[in-house]
Amino acid sequence: MVKINDNYEKLPGSYLFSDIAKKVSAYQEANPDQKIIRLGIGDVTQPLTDSVISALHSAVDEMGQAKTFHGYAPDLGYEFLRTAIAKHDYEERGCDIAADEIFVSDGAKSDSANIQEIFSLDNVIAVCDPVYPVYVDSNVMAGRAGDYDEERGLFDRIVYMPCDAEHGFAPQLPEQEADLIYLCFPNNPTGAVINKEELQKWVDYANEHSSIIIYDAAYEAYIRTDGIPHSIYECKGARTCAIELHSFSKNAGFTGVRLGYTVVPKDLVRDGVALHKLWARRHSTKYNGAPYIIQRAGEAVYSEAGQREVKQLVDYYMKNAAYILKGLKEAGFTVSGGVDAPYIWLKTPNQMTSWEFFDELLEKVGVVGTPGSGFGPHGEGYFRLTAFGSYENTVEAVDRMTKHFQK
Amino acid sequence: MVKINDNYEKLPGSYLFSDIAKKVSAYQEANPDQKIIRLGIGDVTQPLTDSVISALHSAVDEMGQAKTFHGYAPDLGYEFLRTAIAKHDYEERGCDIAADEIFVSDGAKSDSANIQEIFSLDNVIAVCDPVYPVYVDSNVMAGRAGDYDEERGLFDRIVYMPCDAEHGFAPQLPEQEADLIYLCFPNNPTGAVINKEELQKWVDYANEHSSIIIYDAAYEAYIRTDGIPHSIYECKGARTCAIELHSFSKNAGFTGVRLGYTVVPKDLVRDGVALHKLWARRHSTKYNGAPYIIQRAGEAVYSEAGQREVKQLVDYYMKNAAYILKGLKEAGFTVSGGVDAPYIWLKTPNQMTSWEFFDELLEKVGVVGTPGSGFGPHGEGYFRLTAFGSYENTVEAVDRMTKHFQK
Repeated sequence: MVKINDNYEKLPGSYLFSDIAKKVSAYQEANPDQKIIRLGIGDVTQPLTDSVISALHSAVDEMGQAKTFHGYAPDLGYEFLRTAIAKHDYEERGCDIAADEIFVSDGAKSDSANIQEIFSLDNVIAVCDPVYPVYVDSNVMAGRAGDYDEERGLFDRIVYMPCDAEHGFAPQLPEQEADLIYLCFPNNPTGAVINKEELQKWVDYANEHSSIIIYDAAYEAYIRTDGIPHSIYECKGARTCAIELHSFSKNAGFTGVRLGYTVVPKDLVRDGVALHKLWARRHSTKYNGAPYIIQRAGEAVYSEAGQREVKQLVDYYMKNAAYILKGLKEAGFTVSGGVDAPYIWLKTPNQMTSWEFFDELLEKVGVVGTPGSGFGPHGEGYFRLTAFGSYENTVEAVDRMTKHFQK
Repeated sequence: MVKINDNYEKLPGSYLFSDIAKKVSAYQEANPDQKIIRLGIGDVTQPLTDSVISALHSAVDEMGQAKTFHGYAPDLGYEFLRTAIAKHDYEERGCDIAADEIFVSDGAKSDSANIQEIFSLDNVIAVCDPVYPVYVDSNVMAGRAGDYDEERGLFDRIVYMPCDAEHGFAPQLPEQEADLIYLCFPNNPTGAVINKEELQKWVDYANEHSSIIIYDAAYEAYIRTDGIPHSIYECKGARTCAIELHSFSKNAGFTGVRLGYTVVPKDLVRDGVALHKLWARRHSTKYNGAPYIIQRAGEAVYSEAGQREVKQLVDYYMKNAAYILKGLKEAGFTVSGGVDAPYIWLKTPNQMTSWEFFDELLEKVGVVGTPGSGFGPHGEGYFRLTAFGSYENTVEAVDRMTKHFQK
């Protein structure tokens, strides 16, 4: 008699972005003539760059010839990609991370969901509130979150770190004991960043408490301000307390290409066991490597031309962010984020709830964003817009919002 | 204070194929002039076919233009691929499976490792012995396998179904109660198949016991004999008791491309919950879809030309299988499999253990295979060879083996 994993029953509703997609498509069906501008899900809109396209084509050609065909990839990623990552993302930033501490994967979403598997179900996790839902949901499914308190909208075994206006929408060190601490900077959804000195406090805290920080650096390419760390390994002591997640989705536009990586330093040891060994085992047993052609595309991102193109892509989206920030400020909105991050965090006007604002924005303005409350109770009364639209659509969305809400 | 998932500590040794790879590369380093022929890991050697290459190129071109760029894929796979699968793999075989019961993924290995997550840790799993290690290891990591008995080489909460010579190396219905039953036909590693009547008994058993069969059909393209089912859904009642896993690795040579799919029929309900809903939730929360360009490559496999090419590929490898079978038989080996499967299962000569034979074959003959005991205790004294080499290498390997062992 099979029993299901009843932890799934504790998940409130379905996955946030699936909900939004359903709502939007229902509205579009009912209003086929309305041009909907999507600034909701963090999906990019600009095409892959020339270096990446050309690397993909030549890798495809290799796959068509017996002599250059590639079957199963090495479990942990091709050497050519891991070396490029180690050099550009770490060595050049003065971080001590070796190529064999880098695990190539199909993206930061999978890694951020799977990383909890190598830890005991007894651990207490701490997350920001609001937070990227995958950190919480993957722990709920595993049975690490306890029960859901409908009224508070919180799980009783999770430590929540509120990100509120008072602290610039960044989290403060947890007051309760926490074993696994999920951090994301530049933050999704609030767009907040912290400087190196502040991040150092988290690293010191984790080392003191023998906690581990799972550091999601998916948006590091958007950092413009000096002194904001691009990697947690810029901090002293991070090799003994931090795992870092990276994505190619937001810098190189790989949302539909799927590539990411996770760093597990060999100095990261708990219960006498190197976590590097556990994650390697997880990878080799439950995963079969990222496609060869896509790892070649990833390598191209690190070429000189590739880096130039990434900069242009990021500049393109940051121009959108600047337009949204300026436009909405002028229209009287309270906004933050969007300076070192592709996300703009705005306070809903007129005491509207996040979902009320979502509905009004969809139905009256034809713009899709993400309700802050979808990211956690402290997101209530807030709303996330992304800079990942086309420039034309972004301008149109801001203009429509200005017109509607200034009425 | 972080605690690790100590279930990992129960895993004996490292992942089988990683072990073999390390042994082979150490030998090659010490003997740089020896030409090693690899018939070990089930990796293909022939290049991607023309239809697939051309679909990849045009999808890459689409990704380079804003108008045809594709970001995040639909969680469960693109409609174009799911429809093609439903039509070719099910409708044309008279199986009642709808496109929205098909979940596209990065391969059958990931799916076979992840599928256990939607079930309670209390369930008892049943596996063949010998068996593809991922089924067991993924359950060990999750904490469902109990403790490892070093002496017997078995976990104490797993029900093992011996596949021995007496039963043609196919499993018999489990004698103890089992909730999740992993079956793989054509079998990896033994190459055994069963006919529809026999498979029907498993389906009836599962429905009677409210068990679920996880049916790995990764090798179905190799079936030549009439009356051997290509899908478990050819059996009556399978929609209420079976999940089926498919791969593009072995038919279309996608081992380095990564594409597969899993079927969860909507009639599959346990504890009042549709497993379809659970797997959809797992997919949307912990995975981000297979790359667009690779789903287009999968679609090309189902085109008329694609199907012709797949047939040629499979024919190519089956010619190897036939050569190995015939050659080794003539050399006095006891062999099975290789008729409806790309794997040849041979009895080690002279009472050698599987690893003794592995070492002798590597060091004296320069041929790599897989020790049967690596797949489970009932594999001891057996050895797996794959038909996935090039024809030239396969011929050379068999000739070398014949020469060496006939001495």
